[in-house]
Amino acid sequence: MESLKEKILTEGDAIGTEIVKVDGFLNHQIDVKFLEEISEEFRRRFDGVEVDKILTVEASGIAIACMCAPLFGYPPVVFAKKAAPSTMNEGFYEAEAKSFTKGTVSKLKVAEKFVNEGERILIIDDFMASGEASAALARIAEEAGAEIVGIGAVIEKGFQGGSDRLREMGYRVESLAVIDKIEDGVITFR
Amino acid sequence: MESLKEKILTEGDAIGTEIVKVDGFLNHQIDVKFLEEISEEFRRRFDGVEVDKILTVEASGIAIACMCAPLFGYPPVVFAKKAAPSTMNEGFYEAEAKSFTKGTVSKLKVAEKFVNEGERILIIDDFMASGEASAALARIAEEAGAEIVGIGAVIEKGFQGGSDRLREMGYRVESLAVIDKIEDGVITFR
Repeated sequence: MESLKEKILTEGDAIGTEIVKVDGFLNHQIDVKFLEEISEEFRRRFDGVEVDKILTVEASGIAIACMCAPLFGYPPVVFAKKAAPSTMNEGFYEAEAKSFTKGTVSKLKVAEKFVNEGERILIIDDFMASGEASAALARIAEEAGAEIVGIGAVIEKGFQGGSDRLREMGYRVESLAVIDKIEDGVITFR
Repeated sequence: MESLKEKILTEGDAIGTEIVKVDGFLNHQIDVKFLEEISEEFRRRFDGVEVDKILTVEASGIAIACMCAPLFGYPPVVFAKKAAPSTMNEGFYEAEAKSFTKGTVSKLKVAEKFVNEGERILIIDDFMASGEASAALARIAEEAGAEIVGIGAVIEKGFQGGSDRLREMGYRVESLAVIDKIEDGVITFR
């Protein structure tokens, strides 16, 4: 998606060899108008795909998933939580996702009642690195007997192998901008 | 907002005397079509109010703030973070918000570059209890020299005094559904 690559180059910050910071439009401040464009691109990529539910992870994924919903016929959006709130008193699915850049492990939680057998689920991710978050959401969906119809990532750090790994697992992955290299403040796209 | 009260009564869960759980459409699973209605109501309540930025708190606030943005002319949405990510390496404002129900204290953080002097800021909150989260966002905005043009809460637990407190501080508060009492599983609205 050319406008996204352009936006990453003009507004993003390359840090070291592994981090691209896009907190000006995606991860802290959100450009909702631009997210509408991103959602339209996801709709194009998953043209004809029927979606019963959109699954994502808090926090940044929520904005993209919600902006996508109208274009997919308003399926419910469910976001996995990184910590269980005190009101999460019923059964929930849990799957671990390692963050390679942060070196931490999150236990993603989704209430059992919000993922059901036979549902066609689209997973939406803001940033794909090693694909751990999407893989964790996929495990949760499959544990519930749901079907993953696709995984969409806004930005993918291609050099960390996330989409390759997810495709090997049999999933369809669409990344709107794939970064191949970050070096000396320069971002190179695939 | 009658449709919201109806939705709280049919889909919400009253727990004890202090908690209403609406994870079926607002806090875990999100009904995006319904959030569009909520956003239209906020636009009506803040009719004629010019908004340069919408400020909210992760995670549930993000969905509502993003759905509101198109109706307010697409101002940037900024969400305060409860924990500073490793990439938050520049200056940020910080304000404490106590959660009376959870008994915890969150340190809300907003990067300095995303709140600016003279900006007209609309604060959007999903759930208002004692008003601590909104008050913390207001302190951050004022520290930056911005102006609070309004505070909008989807659901307010009126008996915890949040909006009264915020109005005493001089803010305009609009809550779309004010709960007066939760008792024996019954929710009473103001």
